[in-house]
Amino acid sequence: MLTPNLSYANLKESYLFYHIAQKTRAYLAEHPGTHLYRMGIGDVSLPLVPAVIAALHEGVDNQGVKDRFHGYMPECGAPSLRETIAKHYEKRDVFLSPEEVFVSSGASDELGDLLDLFDRSNKALIMEPAYPAYVDANIMAGREIIHLPSGPDDHFLPLPKPGLDADLIYLCSPNNPTGAAYNREQLTQWINWANDRGAVILFDAAYEAFIEEDLPHSIFEIPGAETCAIEICSLSKTAGFTGTRLGYTVIPKALERCGLNLNAMWVRNRTTKTNGVSYILQHGGAAVFTDEGQKQIHANIRIYKENARVLMEALDKAGIRYWGGKNAPYIWMQCPDGMGSWEFFDKLLTEIQVVGTPGEGFGACGEGFFRFSTFGDPADTREAANRLLQLLKK
Amino acid sequence: MLTPNLSYANLKESYLFYHIAQKTRAYLAEHPGTHLYRMGIGDVSLPLVPAVIAALHEGVDNQGVKDRFHGYMPECGAPSLRETIAKHYEKRDVFLSPEEVFVSSGASDELGDLLDLFDRSNKALIMEPAYPAYVDANIMAGREIIHLPSGPDDHFLPLPKPGLDADLIYLCSPNNPTGAAYNREQLTQWINWANDRGAVILFDAAYEAFIEEDLPHSIFEIPGAETCAIEICSLSKTAGFTGTRLGYTVIPKALERCGLNLNAMWVRNRTTKTNGVSYILQHGGAAVFTDEGQKQIHANIRIYKENARVLMEALDKAGIRYWGGKNAPYIWMQCPDGMGSWEFFDKLLTEIQVVGTPGEGFGACGEGFFRFSTFGDPADTREAANRLLQLLKK
Repeated sequence: MLTPNLSYANLKESYLFYHIAQKTRAYLAEHPGTHLYRMGIGDVSLPLVPAVIAALHEGVDNQGVKDRFHGYMPECGAPSLRETIAKHYEKRDVFLSPEEVFVSSGASDELGDLLDLFDRSNKALIMEPAYPAYVDANIMAGREIIHLPSGPDDHFLPLPKPGLDADLIYLCSPNNPTGAAYNREQLTQWINWANDRGAVILFDAAYEAFIEEDLPHSIFEIPGAETCAIEICSLSKTAGFTGTRLGYTVIPKALERCGLNLNAMWVRNRTTKTNGVSYILQHGGAAVFTDEGQKQIHANIRIYKENARVLMEALDKAGIRYWGGKNAPYIWMQCPDGMGSWEFFDKLLTEIQVVGTPGEGFGACGEGFFRFSTFGDPADTREAANRLLQLLKK
Repeated sequence: MLTPNLSYANLKESYLFYHIAQKTRAYLAEHPGTHLYRMGIGDVSLPLVPAVIAALHEGVDNQGVKDRFHGYMPECGAPSLRETIAKHYEKRDVFLSPEEVFVSSGASDELGDLLDLFDRSNKALIMEPAYPAYVDANIMAGREIIHLPSGPDDHFLPLPKPGLDADLIYLCSPNNPTGAAYNREQLTQWINWANDRGAVILFDAAYEAFIEEDLPHSIFEIPGAETCAIEICSLSKTAGFTGTRLGYTVIPKALERCGLNLNAMWVRNRTTKTNGVSYILQHGGAAVFTDEGQKQIHANIRIYKENARVLMEALDKAGIRYWGGKNAPYIWMQCPDGMGSWEFFDKLLTEIQVVGTPGEGFGACGEGFFRFSTFGDPADTREAANRLLQLLKK
C-alpha cells in the first residue's frame, strides 16, 4: 500500500488570499459596478519592457527555424546567461563563477525545489511576518519550524539571540511583507551566527532592485556568506516577470556540509529532475541585463516607487506608523486605533473600496498590521492614497 | 549544523551521455571535420510548427501591452488550457474534469516534483531498461528501489508476477529506450495489481503521439486507472517542445491513499511551491491542440516516423532483431555477434561515424542492446541507415 506524504495532513489551509478574494467578491455582488482599488496581491501591473519583448520575439522566431532551433537546454541554465548574471554581480563587487549561478523558473519554484538538498531532521528558522510558503514547504517536508517573531521594537529586523538554534535560516531582505531591509552589520551577524553553527541561510533577494539606500543587494556582498548562504533571485518584481517566469539562484562552490558540496548536489538535482528552463524565456530574460534593458526596467521600478512615495506621504500626513516603501515595494502599516488586521481590511473595503492584505496572514505577529503593495496602477494608487488619508484623518 | 540530504551520496555518477560526449569529442579531435550521424540523444530536430510560433508571438505581444498583460498565472495551469486538454482526452473516450489536469513545465520537472507526494518508506518499482532519472530521483528521496528487468522473452513488456511487491510503479509506454508499448490487456494487469495492493502507478506517456497500432495512448482508457494512476504527459516529443518546455499531468480526483486525496495534495503542492507556468508558453502550447496545430505536429511526427521506417528497413535487411520504431520514436536493437553495447558504440562511431546510445546506460539488462533515436535529420538518418546496413551485412 502506498503511503502518501502524511506531512501534508499537518498543513493548515492557507486562507489569506482566498479570504480576500471571497470578501471582495461578496462586496462586489452587493455593490455591482463599484471600482475597487486593488493593492493587495504583490503582482506587477506594468507590461514587460520593449527590450525584453523584442528578445522574446527573437527567441520565438529562432524556435521556428531549423538552423536556429533550440532543443534541450543545459539543465543549470544557458552558459551565456549564467555568465551574464555572474557579470551583473560584479557591479556589486561580488565575483562569482558562472557555475555558481543557476537559471530557474522563478524564485517560488526554486524555494520549493531547493529543499530537496536538505535532510528532514533540520530545523527551519522563519522570521515572521513571512511569505507563508516558507512555512508550508517545510511542513510538507516534515521539518520542525522555529518561528522568530519580529515587531516594531526590532524594526521587523530580528537578529540572532542567545538560545536560538536552527539549521536552515530564511532571510528575506528587503522583506515581504514588512519592507524592512537588513544593513551590512546586521547581515554580518546572521552570517557569523550561521557559520559558527554550520547552518545554511536561504537568502530571498526577490526585492533587491527596490533598494534605494546604501544596503546590501546580495548577501554575497558580505564576507563569509560564501560558506553559509544560497541566494534566490527573481525577475518577477525586478522586470515584471510574475507571469513570464524566470529567476536565478547562486550556490557558492565553497558551500559544503558533512562532506557534501551543495553546488555539486544542485547540479545533480537539476540534471536529474529537470530538462532546463525554456530557451525562449532565457533568451528574453537575458535582455534584462543589457544597458537598454536595465534602463527600461528601472524606469518601471521608478513608477512603482512613485506609488510608494504617494502612499507614504498619505500615511505621514495621517500620522500612521509604517515600515518599508523606501527600499521595498511593500508598505507595512500599523492598523489605527488598535484595530485587528481583518477588521481594518473590512473597513478599507467597505468605506473607501481599497483592498490590501491583512498582516495576520503572514504569521501571528503580523496581527494589527496591514500590507499595501505598490505594484498597482498609478492613478488607482493616487486615489487610494487620497481616500486613505481622508479616512485616517477622521 | 545543517545536515544535507545524505541520500545524494548514494547516487552513482550518470556517465551515459557524458561518456558518449567524451568519446565523440575524442574521435572528432583525431578526425577533424568529420560529419557525425547523431542518433544518440532523444532530442527533436524539427522547429516548432507555425501555429505554435504564431501563438507564442501573440503571447509575447500580449505581455508587452498593459491591457493584455498577464501577471501571476493560476498555479495549476490556465483554466482554458486545462479545459482544452481535458477535451483533448475525450477523443479517446477519457472524460476528465479540467481540475484533474495540471499544466507543467514538462514531464522531466514533473516526474521529479511529484515524488513529494509520497512517503520515503514506499518501495519504487522500476522496469528496466528505463530512463535513468526514475532511479536517481528515488535514490535522492531515500527510497528502496526494486529493479524489474525485462528482455526479449517478455518483449520488454514485463508484467506483474508472484512475489513482486512495490508501492510506486513506473510505467513508460511506449517505452524509452525500448520502444515497446503495452496493450490494453497488459495495462489492465498492472492496474488490477496496483488496485489490489493500493499501489500507485506513475504512467509516463511522453511518447503516446507515436503510437500507430490500436494500443492505449492514456492509462485512463483502462477502467480502474482512476483509482491507482497518475499520468505524466509532455509536448516535448509530441510538438517539439524539448527546449520550449510544456507538459501536463493528470491526477484523478478518485485517487486517495490513507485518507489523503492526491489531487488535492497536488493542488496544495503547486500553490505552495510554484507560481504557475509561463503565460507565454501556455498560450503557445494551447495552439498544439487546435485543428491546425494537430495537423502540423502530426506532419512532423510523420517525418520522424519515416526516419524510423528507414532504419527498421535497414535492420530488417541486415537480419537484426529490434523492438520499437512502430509505436515509438526509439529503435532498440540487439547488438550483433554478442557484442557489448559500448563495444558496438565504438564500432559505429569509428567505422561508420554513427552515434547511438549504448543500452547498458538504461540499466544492467540493457547490456547487449543499443538505442537509436529517430528524431534526427532525415538525410542524416537515411545515410546512417545505409552505412548501418553495409556494416551489419558484412
